[in-house]
Amino acid sequence: MTSSPSKTLVANVAFNKVVLIGVGLIGASLGLALKNKKIAQSLVGCGRSQSNLDAALHIGAIDSIGSFEKDICDADLIIISVPVSKTQKILEGVLPHLQPSTLIMDVGSTKSDVIAAAKLALGEKVGQFIPAHPIAGGAKHGAFAAQEDLFLDRQVVLCPIQENTKVATDRIEALWAQLGSNIYKMSAVQHDAIFATVSHLPHLLSYALMLQVTNAEDASLKFRHAGAGFRDFTRIAGSSPEMWRDISIANRASILKELDSYQQILDRMRTALQESDGELLEKMFTQASLSRNNWEG
Amino acid sequence: MTSSPSKTLVANVAFNKVVLIGVGLIGASLGLALKNKKIAQSLVGCGRSQSNLDAALHIGAIDSIGSFEKDICDADLIIISVPVSKTQKILEGVLPHLQPSTLIMDVGSTKSDVIAAAKLALGEKVGQFIPAHPIAGGAKHGAFAAQEDLFLDRQVVLCPIQENTKVATDRIEALWAQLGSNIYKMSAVQHDAIFATVSHLPHLLSYALMLQVTNAEDASLKFRHAGAGFRDFTRIAGSSPEMWRDISIANRASILKELDSYQQILDRMRTALQESDGELLEKMFTQASLSRNNWEG
Repeated sequence: MTSSPSKTLVANVAFNKVVLIGVGLIGASLGLALKNKKIAQSLVGCGRSQSNLDAALHIGAIDSIGSFEKDICDADLIIISVPVSKTQKILEGVLPHLQPSTLIMDVGSTKSDVIAAAKLALGEKVGQFIPAHPIAGGAKHGAFAAQEDLFLDRQVVLCPIQENTKVATDRIEALWAQLGSNIYKMSAVQHDAIFATVSHLPHLLSYALMLQVTNAEDASLKFRHAGAGFRDFTRIAGSSPEMWRDISIANRASILKELDSYQQILDRMRTALQESDGELLEKMFTQASLSRNNWEG
Repeated sequence: MTSSPSKTLVANVAFNKVVLIGVGLIGASLGLALKNKKIAQSLVGCGRSQSNLDAALHIGAIDSIGSFEKDICDADLIIISVPVSKTQKILEGVLPHLQPSTLIMDVGSTKSDVIAAAKLALGEKVGQFIPAHPIAGGAKHGAFAAQEDLFLDRQVVLCPIQENTKVATDRIEALWAQLGSNIYKMSAVQHDAIFATVSHLPHLLSYALMLQVTNAEDASLKFRHAGAGFRDFTRIAGSSPEMWRDISIANRASILKELDSYQQILDRMRTALQESDGELLEKMFTQASLSRNNWEG
């Protein structure tokens, strides 16, 4: 079971030097937030994308652009905000420079694979790695889309591993609390099952509809007449392909299971349509719409 | 082919007496808009739902609540805003009181079935019936959700039939133009094919995901952790079950065809997932996201 959101008063936390590895939407938003809340004294950005690093510097999400060799050794906190498949390689690069007092946090959308990667890369130092997943983001990506209040009143799921000390977990929890997030703790397995349904599957379904219209013979006509419902339904299809490729592969077992359940429901609807069974369709739609309108999402 | 949106200057049009049959979201919004733009001198509401009629009167979308017997005979315009399956019965009730100078417009989301129903109900008077579909609405329904600017800058598709006179079609076109809508004309067949893809199918897909989560063992946990992507994806699942039952049945041939195409894409994604084919997934996601981000929706 998950815990209730933690809104207990936690002591303020601050880090002297924070190294952001990856400064896309999430990384750069964290930079802005940590600076704004005075949680980080200095912020150094590292990453593959020079344009994102330049953008992050330009908007003030980082104070400087650094390197693993120079900046990991005296970092108090390292935040990894990269597509989840890159986690292991990044951590392998971090390890030679890692000091015992440094904490590492990720922000990936899948947790079982990230924890497995961290164990492989960090070995006995894996206790320094605290897995986190802020439920924030959106279809826009890249540093220029960053917002300093991206995590305010949003959920953050922490999936501590047994190697984490309470002190380490508490510091990470305090960080998110100071950003105004609602903190939940659960196991990585439970995390991955829940988000397969409420996040990963809808992304696949939304991408699929976009593909269908895009590849239709009369695509331009269809796009011209698509309205607000289509816009909302496909908003998440604007998300980063690389990030969602990684999430899909990392959590494929859970996603396939959810896709099976979805397929069953879709098959029931198809049969009802074929048989012009208005009664069954209305029953299904009614249950869905009542549920949607009662949900405080 | 569809015409470009008509933004030509059309003469102002006004109607002495407008009878609104059905005063849900669309009917009541039309009432507010017609009154606000002084297109209707007097507005009378008729319908099954006393609570909607009361609400429409309360918000000023109609001036009074009337009856077919009393109010059809001197109406200049009758607007039918009911679930599409009710169209034929409504028109059969209208016919005995219908004067030759009265125009009738519907606002249904499907057009082939509505035109067939109008032909059956009105016979040789079908030329008085101008089929229309404003692409507006939303998940909220009922008169209390009405907005007088619901049609401003929104698309309205007209599907004139050969029995319509130019004078009749022009008057309806002028009405929508005065409400600030962008008017498109196309055949009913083309209309129904386009909206099966960009509207009807996404509604079914969204209802299906809501059903899946609602019926999950850990539904409350899943709803607690669902974020902005899920909220947008499922917004249209809050729509009126009765209306969407009717649309689904009325346009089932087109929807089934679109569901087949969708299924093919979903099957390709499933196979890519099963085979951990990240390259193919990324290719699909990239095409979809580029297309979504380039769409001026």
